[in-house]
Amino acid sequence: MQQSHRINNINEAGSDGWEVFSKARQMISKGVKVTELSIGEHDIATDKSILDAMHESALAGNTGYAKVPGITSLRRAVAERVQARTGVLTSVENVLITPGGQAGLFATHAATCDAGDRALYVEPFYATYPPTLRAQGLEAVSVPTKSSYDFQPQRTDLEKHLKGARSLLINSPNNPSGTIYSHDTMKMIADVCKTYDLWLISDEVYETLIWSSRHISPRSLPNMQERTLVIGSMSKSHAMTGSRIGWVIGPADMIACLTDFATNTTYGVAGFIQEAALFALAMGIKFEEKIAAPFARRRKITLSILAEFQNVKVIDPKGGMYVMLDIRETGLSGIEFANRLLDRHHIAVMPGESFGKSTAGHLRVAMTIADEEYAAALRTLCQFAKGLSNT
Amino acid sequence: MQQSHRINNINEAGSDGWEVFSKARQMISKGVKVTELSIGEHDIATDKSILDAMHESALAGNTGYAKVPGITSLRRAVAERVQARTGVLTSVENVLITPGGQAGLFATHAATCDAGDRALYVEPFYATYPPTLRAQGLEAVSVPTKSSYDFQPQRTDLEKHLKGARSLLINSPNNPSGTIYSHDTMKMIADVCKTYDLWLISDEVYETLIWSSRHISPRSLPNMQERTLVIGSMSKSHAMTGSRIGWVIGPADMIACLTDFATNTTYGVAGFIQEAALFALAMGIKFEEKIAAPFARRRKITLSILAEFQNVKVIDPKGGMYVMLDIRETGLSGIEFANRLLDRHHIAVMPGESFGKSTAGHLRVAMTIADEEYAAALRTLCQFAKGLSNT
Repeated sequence: MQQSHRINNINEAGSDGWEVFSKARQMISKGVKVTELSIGEHDIATDKSILDAMHESALAGNTGYAKVPGITSLRRAVAERVQARTGVLTSVENVLITPGGQAGLFATHAATCDAGDRALYVEPFYATYPPTLRAQGLEAVSVPTKSSYDFQPQRTDLEKHLKGARSLLINSPNNPSGTIYSHDTMKMIADVCKTYDLWLISDEVYETLIWSSRHISPRSLPNMQERTLVIGSMSKSHAMTGSRIGWVIGPADMIACLTDFATNTTYGVAGFIQEAALFALAMGIKFEEKIAAPFARRRKITLSILAEFQNVKVIDPKGGMYVMLDIRETGLSGIEFANRLLDRHHIAVMPGESFGKSTAGHLRVAMTIADEEYAAALRTLCQFAKGLSNT
Repeated sequence: MQQSHRINNINEAGSDGWEVFSKARQMISKGVKVTELSIGEHDIATDKSILDAMHESALAGNTGYAKVPGITSLRRAVAERVQARTGVLTSVENVLITPGGQAGLFATHAATCDAGDRALYVEPFYATYPPTLRAQGLEAVSVPTKSSYDFQPQRTDLEKHLKGARSLLINSPNNPSGTIYSHDTMKMIADVCKTYDLWLISDEVYETLIWSSRHISPRSLPNMQERTLVIGSMSKSHAMTGSRIGWVIGPADMIACLTDFATNTTYGVAGFIQEAALFALAMGIKFEEKIAAPFARRRKITLSILAEFQNVKVIDPKGGMYVMLDIRETGLSGIEFANRLLDRHHIAVMPGESFGKSTAGHLRVAMTIADEEYAAALRTLCQFAKGLSNT
């Protein structure tokens, strides 16, 4: 039986470097020890106190259908958090609780674009961006960026792709590049959205993992509240990836529409998970700093090791869980390098090509394993690159 | 800012009787005691043993991203269950775990229909059916049924609406009517799907709540495996509504497509919830019978009370959580009756009009409160109807 066109077009044909990831997984399943620097997930589990809060909530009888837009207490806590961090007046009506950030990405595109509409996203991009747009029949168009600009989008590149566009999706702090969009970049993006009447969908799930520079939510820029939808999540900030809980922040009328959409796509989020999230948010900044600390440490390790090597350059890692390495001086593509590194040293990294053409000849290294092991693997990677240049 | 057309068209304009439900909720929030016979949810919480299993799984570190199509152990348990209940060979590759049945309804339509395609569903219908289809830009077309046929669809009615149709959505045991489609009805539906090359989406979430007759999964009929997608859920069978866990059963290639779709819509289901579901399924039929027992009891109460009254007729309640009452002899519409009953007696029921024109002049009564209270409220309803006929 024939599936729909949109579901058959979710994934583009051709190599995108994810076969390196699959090969590593196959090696592991066959018992080979592989050092995985390819996974965007903490090397710790969700904190026991959060899990206990979840259990307590469930035992208290919080096991029936929860209100579809989210329980009011959590919506309020998220609103207060967003207002405190951005200075933008935010209330319960501006918050939809979703089963993770990905559900927010999908829903916001459904709510802003119709089938056939053009939806823009910026390179380098999180892997699900283009398929999320294609899954709903949108024309998914990427906007290139340059390594030499630290992957900050430029106005001229944006303007080349605007025709018929309804929305622009950005991600800062950025996965995979570690870049944080500057104030000037954000102002430019806001101006483009206002000039060309675009919705701005701002994926800010890494906003608590900041190493240098400052995260600016574009919703806080003048006249951007009405056209900005912010995606948030507890996954990265609180090590709650598996709990699938996040949110969308936006204008009240749009949140009402998104609530209707949620009724017909997921019918809400487990109440006990929402209460666990409420508990986790109430633990405050100290807890979030504890979750962020390993990445801050490993970023320092990265910069200190990279300083010893000539032919691998690091894109200034300002935030997030990853560092982006420029290995073009080795003469190899990211895919070739990653494949050889995996074969020779059993170290798995993601080729830059997996995140769009803008990061060809780059590697994304996830700082998601223990410090010593991470340092050793990174050193091996750099030695391997050095050997390539010498030959 | 303008939302997408599809999200603005989710809900149809005009009264559909849900304002009775909203009015009841407002009365309750103002402190009025309302007897709610309008909610499709058990009057018990999720069993403590299931919640303990969930907590144990979470404490064991099962808190990271789970495999998107579901953990293999749960997919296998669901496959074995489906095979045992239907006799159809079913393996892990035929199962996608979803965050509830609603997510399955949405995903299966996305995977079978493109924007603009016609998708059929049968009246009377669960409230989310038409908006789930409209949310993705489909032409949602209902197929009427008749009270005199116990709301079993007829071939001539189906054939009137087939032009351009890609899919047909059915629900047996049926919410709201309590009907179970007969073997003849299912054979007719299967034949129509094969003759006109339709996907059949079969919502079977009430399949463990059977009072008379027998539930036939259309996937078990000849040559229907390849074109049938079955929606299942732990919500009604195991009183796990709030946990949001269900599944889709279908051909392996379609499940692979649906897995891609899940990657881009929800990114899987919490692993600890999946392990709780696995535990719950392992408790076996005795547990499911315990969950079903209150509805079986209340169905008997319903039939015995209804036998005393002349002008209220009950549609033979064969399965599910609800009974459908025909109150056309009172001369009132379902909406008028439900409104007056709420105003006069503070009893909330759903007007049949909320589930399509086929159930105009009917009421859906949820058997979801304690037996004595349920019996008293139903008796009051019938006395009220009797009074209406006498005036």
